[in-house]
Amino acid sequence: MTNDIVTLDHGSGGKKTSQLIEELLVPAFSNDTLSQLGDGALLDLQGPLIFSTDSFVVDPIFFPGGNIGKLSVCGTVNDLAMCGGQPRYLSLSLLLEEGFPLDDLRTIVSSIAQTAKQAGVEIVTGDTKVVERGKGDGIYINTSGIGTLRYPGLSPEAIQPGDVVILSGTMGDHGATVMMARNGLLEGSSLQSDCQPLWQLAKAALDCGGVRVLRDPTRGGVATTLNEFTENRPISIELDEDALPVRGAVQAACDLLGLDPLYCANEGKLLAICHPSSAEAVLAALQATPGGQEAAVIGRVTDRYPGKVILNTFLGGGRVLSKLTGAQLPRIC
Amino acid sequence: MTNDIVTLDHGSGGKKTSQLIEELLVPAFSNDTLSQLGDGALLDLQGPLIFSTDSFVVDPIFFPGGNIGKLSVCGTVNDLAMCGGQPRYLSLSLLLEEGFPLDDLRTIVSSIAQTAKQAGVEIVTGDTKVVERGKGDGIYINTSGIGTLRYPGLSPEAIQPGDVVILSGTMGDHGATVMMARNGLLEGSSLQSDCQPLWQLAKAALDCGGVRVLRDPTRGGVATTLNEFTENRPISIELDEDALPVRGAVQAACDLLGLDPLYCANEGKLLAICHPSSAEAVLAALQATPGGQEAAVIGRVTDRYPGKVILNTFLGGGRVLSKLTGAQLPRIC
Repeated sequence: MTNDIVTLDHGSGGKKTSQLIEELLVPAFSNDTLSQLGDGALLDLQGPLIFSTDSFVVDPIFFPGGNIGKLSVCGTVNDLAMCGGQPRYLSLSLLLEEGFPLDDLRTIVSSIAQTAKQAGVEIVTGDTKVVERGKGDGIYINTSGIGTLRYPGLSPEAIQPGDVVILSGTMGDHGATVMMARNGLLEGSSLQSDCQPLWQLAKAALDCGGVRVLRDPTRGGVATTLNEFTENRPISIELDEDALPVRGAVQAACDLLGLDPLYCANEGKLLAICHPSSAEAVLAALQATPGGQEAAVIGRVTDRYPGKVILNTFLGGGRVLSKLTGAQLPRIC
Repeated sequence: MTNDIVTLDHGSGGKKTSQLIEELLVPAFSNDTLSQLGDGALLDLQGPLIFSTDSFVVDPIFFPGGNIGKLSVCGTVNDLAMCGGQPRYLSLSLLLEEGFPLDDLRTIVSSIAQTAKQAGVEIVTGDTKVVERGKGDGIYINTSGIGTLRYPGLSPEAIQPGDVVILSGTMGDHGATVMMARNGLLEGSSLQSDCQPLWQLAKAALDCGGVRVLRDPTRGGVATTLNEFTENRPISIELDEDALPVRGAVQAACDLLGLDPLYCANEGKLLAICHPSSAEAVLAALQATPGGQEAAVIGRVTDRYPGKVILNTFLGGGRVLSKLTGAQLPRIC
């Protein structure tokens, strides 16, 4: 039955597009703002605001702990949260391949609605396009988000030697899960993506004061994100290898796939760099917030290796962690 | 040389992604707001605001009068303008297929920058993803936009019998051009997409007062857009066939392809429905604004055929124009 799959008609802007919007999308996201103005949403917001966008092409689209829909909400609300912005509104743009099962679309849309609710955001405007078979890969999603700036002044420029590097939980769960799923190696595994909205964790940390910068280490992982802080600056970041929180299943998956958890994507973790006098409070606040129980101090900002991120190993040696090079993990989000 | 094409590395979040952003994208869109906060942009805006999103999958990506880059700016700023919002900021998300020529990307990015400047918006945040060969079609683009509401109260609900329907220029230029280009039939043709930002035209019309609603008739064309106004309402819209502005080349292309200009996409035209006492002023204001010289009154709102759009033909007959059904024009924007 053609009713069960996405057809090119669904993207033509005509009757089938309206049906898809009115029967499948609008009921899922029902709120007072949605599409009251046709092609745009009217928002009664006071500035300053944070604005962010992300497209999602994760393969496979369903994985333990989430799917492309949940991910597409988390990814964008987390970008807002990392800027000190309380996530408020999202746009949702679906890019569907002809033949995509409508049942899968319903599942994804329902995840989007549920995650948006959890994250405290409303989906207020959207768009749907359909491309021919072989010109896409089932579904790609873009979300853009608007948040209200609650904590101004966060900036990598504020980082100083002596600052403490805190990670809100274990590393690499999302990346390892998706890569194992893609390779059909998940059977019997306890792997699960860490995909979750981070505003509550961000708020808990920021309320302590002394936080220089927050960042969620997604593509490129913890090592790449930290390099963005040290690049062209007279500071280094030194990590303690034995302080890095990694689940056994993630380490095993990385060993099997030839990956390094330090470069594996996270979708529900934040890095907080904070003044040493706040570190204890920030750590405690994260650990007391759902999703942050395994937060840990993983390193320090120093001035010994300007521009570099260094891993101090178990054996007393040091290893330079550069930015991710090459496509270690394509289509991880 | 692998430098000449997009590779999966460009989407991994590592060094090549940074290079693409820093060498190709940031210089093109240089402004004070862009990426000052990492994954989000800080906007000092006062509400109320308009928020809109659109993804672009046009095939071919280059066509007379524009390309997917120009289109991706026009599409979103026009959605904002139709809501009475002055376009202010755009996000830009690129979804690239492995192997896409970097020279084409440069051309498209340069069009985006130029059109954004023309439209008075800044590109302030972005995202880049790369999918494997065969999982995309060169380039897809999402833009989301934020505008400042300058003209509140526009709504299809405000439309009343007696109102006048004005179109800001000729019909179907974009749709006909793209379809002829896709079929390799453009040689010797004067066809050109009408792709242009519409805020100046919208502002000109709205400053006259008496405008009930504005809408840009993109996918589905003039006929589908007008149906969205009459649907489930006790009003009809009657169009005069001999008042419809259509270029000869567009009509010829439509005849050849079996299309109807009334259902062909426009990307630089607006429909204004206004109180009869304002119609003359609105028409004159549009005609006096660049891009609106060929504006025309094309019909009237009545109550004779509730819920319907009717075309009154040359021969004195009437024809019901329903919403577009079927995929007349897939991937037109």
